[in-house]
Amino acid sequence: MTFQSFNPPLRTLMGPGPSDVHPRVLSAMARPTVGHLDPSFIGMMDEVKTLLQYAFQTENPLTFPVSAPGSAGMETCFANLIEAGDKVIVCINGVFGMRMKENVERCGGIPIVVEDAWGRPVDANKVEDALKKNPDVKIVAFVQAETSTGVHSDPAVLCKLAQNYGALSIVDAVTSVGGMPVLVDEWGVDAIYSGTQKCLSCVPGLSPVTFSPRAMEVMKQRKSKVQSWFLDMNLVMGYWGEGKSRSYHHTAPVNTLYALHESLVMLHNEGIENAWHRHAKNHLALKVGLEAMGLRFAVDEAHRLPQLNAIVIPEGVDDAKLRSQALERFGLEIGAGLGAFAGKIWRIGLMGQSSSPRHVIMCLTVLESLLSDAKADIECGKAIDAAQKILF
Amino acid sequence: MTFQSFNPPLRTLMGPGPSDVHPRVLSAMARPTVGHLDPSFIGMMDEVKTLLQYAFQTENPLTFPVSAPGSAGMETCFANLIEAGDKVIVCINGVFGMRMKENVERCGGIPIVVEDAWGRPVDANKVEDALKKNPDVKIVAFVQAETSTGVHSDPAVLCKLAQNYGALSIVDAVTSVGGMPVLVDEWGVDAIYSGTQKCLSCVPGLSPVTFSPRAMEVMKQRKSKVQSWFLDMNLVMGYWGEGKSRSYHHTAPVNTLYALHESLVMLHNEGIENAWHRHAKNHLALKVGLEAMGLRFAVDEAHRLPQLNAIVIPEGVDDAKLRSQALERFGLEIGAGLGAFAGKIWRIGLMGQSSSPRHVIMCLTVLESLLSDAKADIECGKAIDAAQKILF
Repeated sequence: MTFQSFNPPLRTLMGPGPSDVHPRVLSAMARPTVGHLDPSFIGMMDEVKTLLQYAFQTENPLTFPVSAPGSAGMETCFANLIEAGDKVIVCINGVFGMRMKENVERCGGIPIVVEDAWGRPVDANKVEDALKKNPDVKIVAFVQAETSTGVHSDPAVLCKLAQNYGALSIVDAVTSVGGMPVLVDEWGVDAIYSGTQKCLSCVPGLSPVTFSPRAMEVMKQRKSKVQSWFLDMNLVMGYWGEGKSRSYHHTAPVNTLYALHESLVMLHNEGIENAWHRHAKNHLALKVGLEAMGLRFAVDEAHRLPQLNAIVIPEGVDDAKLRSQALERFGLEIGAGLGAFAGKIWRIGLMGQSSSPRHVIMCLTVLESLLSDAKADIECGKAIDAAQKILF
Repeated sequence: MTFQSFNPPLRTLMGPGPSDVHPRVLSAMARPTVGHLDPSFIGMMDEVKTLLQYAFQTENPLTFPVSAPGSAGMETCFANLIEAGDKVIVCINGVFGMRMKENVERCGGIPIVVEDAWGRPVDANKVEDALKKNPDVKIVAFVQAETSTGVHSDPAVLCKLAQNYGALSIVDAVTSVGGMPVLVDEWGVDAIYSGTQKCLSCVPGLSPVTFSPRAMEVMKQRKSKVQSWFLDMNLVMGYWGEGKSRSYHHTAPVNTLYALHESLVMLHNEGIENAWHRHAKNHLALKVGLEAMGLRFAVDEAHRLPQLNAIVIPEGVDDAKLRSQALERFGLEIGAGLGAFAGKIWRIGLMGQSSSPRHVIMCLTVLESLLSDAKADIECGKAIDAAQKILF
C-alpha cells in the first residue's frame, strides 16, 4: 500500500461548524512547535486567557480553553460542579440539552428535565416552576444557542432565575461566543463553555470555558474527587492557573493554541460589538433573500440565532441530494438537520469568517440554482436584490 | 490593550515531548479546514486508521485517535473497561503509573498496586504474585515506556501474564509508538494508548488508541454506562467506526488530523523498522558521547529507552539554570525531572524528528559547553568523536 499527503478540497463552510478559517489563523497554527512549558509559550497562554475574558465579557480569573472539543468543555463544567445525588434542572429543546442530561446522569447527578419543543426557546416559567418544586436544586443548565435548531434562549432571564433560587447556572455557548452577546459577568453565569470552530472561526479542537468565583468555591469544597482526571479543574489549574509557575498536567495542544490566539487577536481587532453587529446584519440579508425566494425559517423571528439559520426544506426536495450537489458542484457545505429535525431542515451557518456578504450571496445563489433544478416551488430572481439592499 | 500575532522562537526540542515537528506536518495542518463529515475528510480518516494499525502493528478494527492529548487516551482505556468494583493491577514505577492508579480510582475500580523503584522496570514476578493472590483481577495496567524515568518494561512478558490469569491488559505506549517496537497483536495487548507529540513527531493534541476484539466485547457487555460521554467508545464508534456512514458525535479536530495523517505517511514511507533502528542508533551515539563526557544514566543499560534518556545531573550543577541557559543561548529544550526525580535528572528526548545525528551532536555540544561553564567534573573534547564513530 502507498499513502499520499492529503490535500483537502476547497470548501465554503456554511454548516453548523466548523466555519471558514482565515489564512491568518491557518498560518499561525503552522508556526514551529515549542514546548508546552516554554517561557514564550506561557506568555502566549496568558494572552489567550485575557482574550477569552474579552470574548466571554468577564473578569473571571478561571478562564481558559479546555484541550479538547466543545463536548469536553461541556463535560468539564458538569463533572467539576456535580457530585453524586446533586439535582440539576436541565432544559431540553434540542440535541445539546439532551447531551447535558446525559452528562448529569453520568456524573451521578439527578436531572430534572424542563422540556420545550424543538424550535422553541426554553420557557422561563417552566424553569421557575421546577425551581419552586425542587428547592434543593444545585444547578440550572441550558443552551443559549441551540445548534441543532437555531434557537436562542435568554441567559439574562434564566441565570437570574437560578440566582433567585440559590442555584448555579451552566450555559452552553458553543455557537454563541463571538456571534452574539455573551455577557458572563452581567448575567451572572457560573460556568459556560464554547467551541473554537464556530463564531471564533478557529480550527476545531478546543473548548473555551470560564467559571465564576462562586463556581470555583464549589469546586474547591467538593467532598468527592472529580470523576475525570483529565478534566479535573483542581489539577488543570496547576497548568492554566495564575502566576508564573506552571506545572505539567497534560501536554497542551501547542499549535492549536497558536491558532486560537490568532483568531482571538482578530476578534479583538475587529471589536466584539462589531462582530455581533456583523453577524446580525448578514443574518438579516440572508433572511430577506430566503424569504424573497419563498423559503421559511423553522424558528419564530423573535428567537432566531443570527449565526445559525434553520430553514424548512421545501416539499418534494431530496435533502441529501441537494446538500451533495451544493458540495460537489459549488464546494458549499450546508448542514443537515439532527434528531427530530433530520430531513426537515437545513442548518445554514453564518459564523465568524463565514458571516460575510460573499457568503450570503453565494448561499442564496446556490440554493436558488439547485432548488430550481429540483423543481421546488420557489420564486426566482429576487433573492440577491433583496439581500443586497441590506448588505450595501 | 493591543495584541500581536504570536511568533514563537525557534527551538530544538529534546525534552520528553513535544519533539520537533517536520515542516511537512506543519504545512499539512495549515491546509484549508473542511467539515468533519465531508466525504473527502472521511476518506482521510480511513487512511489514518490504517496507518495507525501499522504504527501499532495490529489488525484491530477499533483503532483511531482520541480527539484530545495522551492523558485523555489513558482515560478512554480505563473509563471504558472498568466498572465499579473491578479490580485492576496497576504497576507503578514512575509518574504515569501513578496517573493510572488515579484513573482506576476515579472510575470506581479497586487498584492493586505493584510498585517498583523509580528508574527500575516493572517486576513480572511481583505482578504474577499479585495475580495469584487476586484471581478475580480484571485488568493488568502498566507503562511500556515510562516518560518520567526513561525505563522500558517488557509488554511481551506482562501481557502474556495477564492472559495466563484471564485478565485484560492496558498499556501506556505514549512515548514508545514509532520509537521502538510496539507489537500489539504479537503481544496480545487489549487496550493501548499513545500520544502524537513524541516519536510520531506530530503536534500535540491527539491520542491514538487501539482495542482488541476481546476488549471491544467487554465494552459492549458493560452493565453501566461509561462515566464520560465524550470518551464513551460505544458512542465515538458512530463517528470513527466501520462503514461509509459516519454520524456526528463531536466535532473532530480536523486540522490536527491532517497533521497526524502526514506524520503517519512519513513513518510509513520510512518504514517502521527503520524508524526503530534510527532511534536505537542515535541513542547509542548519545550514550557513548555522554559517557565519554563522564555523565551517567539513571537507568540500567538493559532497561533504557532509546528515545528518552534519563541522565544524572552532575553534583553541584544548578538544574534549572542550566536548562534555562540551554534554552536561551542555544534554543535547546531538554526536560526536567518529575516527582521523585525532580532536580536529580535531565530527560533528553531523541524522539521522531528529534532523533537525528544533528540532534545528538547539538545536545552533546551544548551540554559540554554549559557544564564546563558550571565547573562540573566532566571530560571535555571527547564526546563528539565518540558519537561520530557510531553515527557515521
